[in-house]
Amino acid sequence: MSATDNTHDLTTGAEPGIDVTAATPSQHPEVIDILVQAFAADPGFLRVIPQPDSDNQLLRSLFELQIEAQYSKDGHIDVATNEEDVIVGVALWDAPDAGHGAVDQAKILPRLIKIFGAHATKLVLREFTSARMHPRFPHWYLYTIATTPESRGTGVGSALLNHGLQRAGEEAVYLEATSTRAAQLYHRLGFVPLGYIPDNDDLTSEFAMWKPPTMPVS
Amino acid sequence: MSATDNTHDLTTGAEPGIDVTAATPSQHPEVIDILVQAFAADPGFLRVIPQPDSDNQLLRSLFELQIEAQYSKDGHIDVATNEEDVIVGVALWDAPDAGHGAVDQAKILPRLIKIFGAHATKLVLREFTSARMHPRFPHWYLYTIATTPESRGTGVGSALLNHGLQRAGEEAVYLEATSTRAAQLYHRLGFVPLGYIPDNDDLTSEFAMWKPPTMPVS
Repeated sequence: MSATDNTHDLTTGAEPGIDVTAATPSQHPEVIDILVQAFAADPGFLRVIPQPDSDNQLLRSLFELQIEAQYSKDGHIDVATNEEDVIVGVALWDAPDAGHGAVDQAKILPRLIKIFGAHATKLVLREFTSARMHPRFPHWYLYTIATTPESRGTGVGSALLNHGLQRAGEEAVYLEATSTRAAQLYHRLGFVPLGYIPDNDDLTSEFAMWKPPTMPVS
Repeated sequence: MSATDNTHDLTTGAEPGIDVTAATPSQHPEVIDILVQAFAADPGFLRVIPQPDSDNQLLRSLFELQIEAQYSKDGHIDVATNEEDVIVGVALWDAPDAGHGAVDQAKILPRLIKIFGAHATKLVLREFTSARMHPRFPHWYLYTIATTPESRGTGVGSALLNHGLQRAGEEAVYLEATSTRAAQLYHRLGFVPLGYIPDNDDLTSEFAMWKPPTMPVS
């Protein structure tokens, strides 16, 4: 699962007044609020979160688990703040040395089952499919970018993405775009197509993309 | 394992007088001769073929097995012929719907063991590593291009490659370049880096590359 194109905001260019930094633990609740708000109506999450999800409690639990057990340990939680120092966006990244594989996903399995009960199966299968589709070559993984509704179109998504791409440097980046429009935006930023993530429903298929590492020099 | 850069000949441009066609069964012995001659001193094959390999008998057996059990069934065997209708090069491709996975490789395992005996392990492990590194997205796989020594530098490798790329059309192509020089040639033809194939020796590491499929249209 990926939610990388929520922002509809991956314009290139300057992002005046936007600062991107690593989230402090005290910022995690606000990060989770932004993620829940951004993805409450997202097809990718609707696909795997049991419905109805009253007050988005299950979606919230999923992000809480991912932040606590995964991204605050092996990943990067980037926050974008505006000139008033208010958080207006967040990006979650896995580093190349963090496992993105099925084995690593399995570590949080008991807690997923605790939250989702019998409904965990669909979510877990989806996560395993995604993990299995990751290229076996070292890469950064952009799991998601989310912005606050009021900040969309102001370059926040772009600032978060560029921050992550600069950190990746000469290393590869992998992501799963959740719309053709998002894929086209990533394409303009140097990502090339890998292919569609297999699924068995009628929702929009996610499209895997790769920003190549630098070429070896002779 | 891959041997895609044997030809040292992947120039772009016109290839006057070179014709590329599907090999007929009667051409298979000649195809195997060209492969053996091309790769008898290749690091990629020296890595996995038990040495000494008197008269290249083991290398020949490997190509015979691959041609018969794999490429004549699920793949494409392309031959390049010159104006005198002499075969001057060969390319072996797996189609996207042919499995490149470990399971498919396992099918020829009993026959590999029969040929290589205890030495099969190294070859099999290497093949499994390669199979495991293939992206999970549909793609053509260029296993190898080989040319006759006397035809090098005459555009034969280029003609074989372009023929395969045209057949692939909008679909992705995967290969493992066995030298940085080869990787740079493929890069100029639209392949992007994935990364190095893991190995545990001091020989040159193979470098996996990807020619992206076309972007989805909105």
